[in-house]
Amino acid sequence: VRIGVIGDGGWGTALALLLRENGHSVRLWGAFPDYVEEVRRSRENVRFLPGVPLPADLSLTSDPADLVEGASLVVSVVPTPYLRVVARRFAPLLSPGTPLVSATKGLEKDTLARPTQILGEVLGESRPCAVLSGPSHAEEVSRGVPTAVVAGCPDGAVRTRVQEVFSNERFRVYGSSDAVGVELGGALKNVIALAAGICDGLQMGDNPKAALVTRGVVEIARLGSTLGARRETFFGLSGVGDLIVTAYSRHSRNRSVGERIARGEALESILSSSAMVPEGVFTTRALGERDAGVDLPIVSELYGVLFRRRDPREAVIRLMTRDLKEEVEG
Amino acid sequence: VRIGVIGDGGWGTALALLLRENGHSVRLWGAFPDYVEEVRRSRENVRFLPGVPLPADLSLTSDPADLVEGASLVVSVVPTPYLRVVARRFAPLLSPGTPLVSATKGLEKDTLARPTQILGEVLGESRPCAVLSGPSHAEEVSRGVPTAVVAGCPDGAVRTRVQEVFSNERFRVYGSSDAVGVELGGALKNVIALAAGICDGLQMGDNPKAALVTRGVVEIARLGSTLGARRETFFGLSGVGDLIVTAYSRHSRNRSVGERIARGEALESILSSSAMVPEGVFTTRALGERDAGVDLPIVSELYGVLFRRRDPREAVIRLMTRDLKEEVEG
Repeated sequence: VRIGVIGDGGWGTALALLLRENGHSVRLWGAFPDYVEEVRRSRENVRFLPGVPLPADLSLTSDPADLVEGASLVVSVVPTPYLRVVARRFAPLLSPGTPLVSATKGLEKDTLARPTQILGEVLGESRPCAVLSGPSHAEEVSRGVPTAVVAGCPDGAVRTRVQEVFSNERFRVYGSSDAVGVELGGALKNVIALAAGICDGLQMGDNPKAALVTRGVVEIARLGSTLGARRETFFGLSGVGDLIVTAYSRHSRNRSVGERIARGEALESILSSSAMVPEGVFTTRALGERDAGVDLPIVSELYGVLFRRRDPREAVIRLMTRDLKEEVEG
Repeated sequence: VRIGVIGDGGWGTALALLLRENGHSVRLWGAFPDYVEEVRRSRENVRFLPGVPLPADLSLTSDPADLVEGASLVVSVVPTPYLRVVARRFAPLLSPGTPLVSATKGLEKDTLARPTQILGEVLGESRPCAVLSGPSHAEEVSRGVPTAVVAGCPDGAVRTRVQEVFSNERFRVYGSSDAVGVELGGALKNVIALAAGICDGLQMGDNPKAALVTRGVVEIARLGSTLGARRETFFGLSGVGDLIVTAYSRHSRNRSVGERIARGEALESILSSSAMVPEGVFTTRALGERDAGVDLPIVSELYGVLFRRRDPREAVIRLMTRDLKEEVEG
């Protein structure tokens, strides 16, 4: 199978490598011709996946026409802030039947649109489209560390095809018909990971962090079900699984922003000192400023701490002293 | 309210302290008169909760009659291996209407009986009985670290009463009508924590550990639902929450047994070198030697590694290369 991968970040590159290992003919597209040329020459994506050699038969291109030519599957791994503009470059080139797999995690900053919603708007709604998400540090996948993810697509045949194309003995792909839930999990988990970082920064302990993660999943599942997702999806790999890997990893940007907030740094100074924007911050802002129509106690307190400079310790006490509740809502 | 707490281990002592802080009159019972006397004199449970001062108005006793006298609620926190024999000492003394709260985590070694099943057999089935479980290191609770747990009881009035008696601004108690699920979660999670320890010992990475924990919860939920529990309970504080705190903590006995197994130590030598028995080992054995009637791939592989000295790396590959599946079963 010839496959085109759009997006030469760490995750796009790792997925391109995986697909090539699985015997497919793979092209990887990057937006910047100079950088693509550099990667092609050095056979290393030094900025986004350093230390991982790229084999000679993984072709690299910055030409959209080159990427889609002959491709029977296209994988989109473009970060949400650039997704709309990149998709527009591919819109005239992609044949209507070519299935898409979106592996972008995150929502569009102000609209909270999901990546596949953006792709649908730009590329047409009728194209078969799946999402791929789960606990998957790119660097581990590129080293062949065992990883399990979910492919979400309401169409069973497309879903099975995606499972088969990506799976091997170190990369296991479960199927889910709930594409919306799979996609939302990977985005909303960043909000809870940020709160978990605050927990770390306050050096509260293991009990409160586990409680936060567990109740956080309940909260994003509650929100997700009002957005068309199924609750149970959030208790799977793309929800709680991805949240665990983010909340308990040294490397997570969202977690470490929370840690710095808890130590008293102002949000503005954290944001101005880092090149990459931790998207949990913007998702929290967008959620905090609209009426989601459901009870989101953790998100509300996090919004207050981030944007109203409320004391995080007092936020914890407010969360602990709410009315006593049943764990599972009817 | 006068409350008796049976069991002067770390968790029993932490709960006794919590209840006393909440304004109740609390008595704590220990099986060994000499040790109880020592704790009473030093005002410190030096063996099981060192460094935590015990206030003068927390009374200590080794006399069962003394413990139950005037108690309108009795909390049982006796480790499963001793629960049956301890309960027999209290059987003639407990009035039939006194409600019980069981906070013991774990199943009886060979029978896999739940603590409340044992209590029911010995003390009678008709007594109101709740369970309390969740991610709660005793040492953190005794220091007032924010903690959230679940009280499980089919009777709503008893459940609410337990929530109210235990809750304060640092200890939040959710309610659940699924007592069986709450109780099973705290026991079965040890099996998955043991497997997570193997993952740590093999230094596999963050992705496989998150996948193991997430799929592990699905597996114990599948098993639990055949034993009378509700699936969703395992995705709450007493299931995934407690599993996270165990699998990601330095202090967990079950996790560290897994770590040593992965480094090549034989199970017998690990068991003979530790005073406390990591109960995940026996739960795995009991589950591996009976036909649970459901698919338990992780438990089966863990059984092979522990009791048949199978190679853990090969077990991982077998788990990764099973037939491709849907994430949520119908």
